[in-house]
Amino acid sequence: MEIFQGLSAFPITPADEDGVVDAEGVMGLSARLAAAGVDTIGLLGSTGTYAYLTRTERRRAIQAAMKSVGGTTPLIVGVGALRTDEAQNLARDAQFEGASALLLAPVSYTPLTEDEVFAHYAAVASATSLPLCIYNNPSTTHFTFSPALLGRLAGVANIKAVKMPLPGAMPIASELDVLRAGPAGRLAIGYSGDWGAAEALLAGADAWYSVVAGFLPEISMQMVRAARDADRQEVSRINGLLEPLWGLFRQFGSLRVAYAAVNALGLSQAAPPKPILPLSSADRQRTVEALAHAGLG
Amino acid sequence: MEIFQGLSAFPITPADEDGVVDAEGVMGLSARLAAAGVDTIGLLGSTGTYAYLTRTERRRAIQAAMKSVGGTTPLIVGVGALRTDEAQNLARDAQFEGASALLLAPVSYTPLTEDEVFAHYAAVASATSLPLCIYNNPSTTHFTFSPALLGRLAGVANIKAVKMPLPGAMPIASELDVLRAGPAGRLAIGYSGDWGAAEALLAGADAWYSVVAGFLPEISMQMVRAARDADRQEVSRINGLLEPLWGLFRQFGSLRVAYAAVNALGLSQAAPPKPILPLSSADRQRTVEALAHAGLG
Repeated sequence: MEIFQGLSAFPITPADEDGVVDAEGVMGLSARLAAAGVDTIGLLGSTGTYAYLTRTERRRAIQAAMKSVGGTTPLIVGVGALRTDEAQNLARDAQFEGASALLLAPVSYTPLTEDEVFAHYAAVASATSLPLCIYNNPSTTHFTFSPALLGRLAGVANIKAVKMPLPGAMPIASELDVLRAGPAGRLAIGYSGDWGAAEALLAGADAWYSVVAGFLPEISMQMVRAARDADRQEVSRINGLLEPLWGLFRQFGSLRVAYAAVNALGLSQAAPPKPILPLSSADRQRTVEALAHAGLG
Repeated sequence: MEIFQGLSAFPITPADEDGVVDAEGVMGLSARLAAAGVDTIGLLGSTGTYAYLTRTERRRAIQAAMKSVGGTTPLIVGVGALRTDEAQNLARDAQFEGASALLLAPVSYTPLTEDEVFAHYAAVASATSLPLCIYNNPSTTHFTFSPALLGRLAGVANIKAVKMPLPGAMPIASELDVLRAGPAGRLAIGYSGDWGAAEALLAGADAWYSVVAGFLPEISMQMVRAARDADRQEVSRINGLLEPLWGLFRQFGSLRVAYAAVNALGLSQAAPPKPILPLSSADRQRTVEALAHAGLG
């Protein structure tokens, strides 16, 4: 699936204290990503705080992004929810508003079994005709997909891709070999975890699901193009420019840093939804320095 | 605080496929618990699927329980939510409808820092005048309270208790000694994890926050009374009757077993909210046998 290839940029979703989405803000951030030529926009991902927004506000965000970049840059829209019926409704909203694809995380409170996750995905995938990407994000959902479950899900109509977390010890190239040799190989396989993106791209991952591209789309596109040219030296050079940001991502979580960066770049003054707090003033300063190291800000 | 002493029974919240609460069902389950003489009802706890119900439906559940047992058995109402403002609104609803106390879990998607959890609790505790119990439930929230954070929270107005998970290796008596010797000792300290209840009660925990008491309140009260009399032999005998249920709780999660038990006892035909699935027919049969072993069903 072409929609699940290349650079997918995941912006924050600016909203006010009450969780009302700033439509103008969404339009501005989206337009900037489209202008930089990202392949897709990952709207309402974890960085887009989908879990903290109501169905009404999530719809408002999609409408704003479509108004800004519809027909130019396809949207992959996060439709995760604790309840299966809610996730189905969010998927229908996304299709109605013009999304090109869905991204679904197994959001949980009560820890879920593999059979429950399978049934949840089958139900949401059947709710629309859009292609769906499995959002494998154990750090937020606390559910880890086994290769066997990914293989089962690859056989479900409309399920076309998986967004993987960085593997623990195994090199990404080895994990890709293992997955592609099995039934999960029918899926397009992309990676999140920006500090592993250079490795993932050079290993031939289908996509980079990127937080940094949500606020630094141009340098992110440069890294993707260098990897396409198999220019390891250039990939490594760009990765070095971004290294201070990776350090902040690992220390504070990429979400909090993304808000600080967007604020520092003057793109939006939005704060994350409480209980999530903005970075301290000292750590915001470190973010400014990391942006300067990347040649921006 | 007397409200955080003794047996707190946590019933399921019967609801239909669309998440609409069955008010008659809530009334029936609540009345049964009150008749058995439980000290409090833990409404809309994890077993009460609070995380899967809208604000409107959570309010409906409180109204139904109050109609059934208001003035007889106090309600401790779960007000957890991902957003701080939503948890504050749920707390205000609970107070308005007549709850006696609040139970607050640090529900998370983005993993939270200690400072974020502290600010969240302070904000919710200040939204009403009700006493609040910290819901320390790492298996669902993936946040573990350090003794230091519990100590900090014990200094916040209205925060009066903590509901602890079973400790890993440490005996409960030792954990209680450690907590009570520090600033967290200002809190009433109770335990969940029913298979450790006998140990917790004999160790002098203030409360047993109990799933099994939500459908077997009488035998649970017997265990609490035996522990009050320091009758270790009787506590152990009752615990033995419940052992097969503990095995099912550990294997399937107590929530799924609670639904199977409530169904088997003819108290409600409700199913858990999807994506959570009912137990298989074979495991429902094992639940029936476990109830028979306890002398019921």
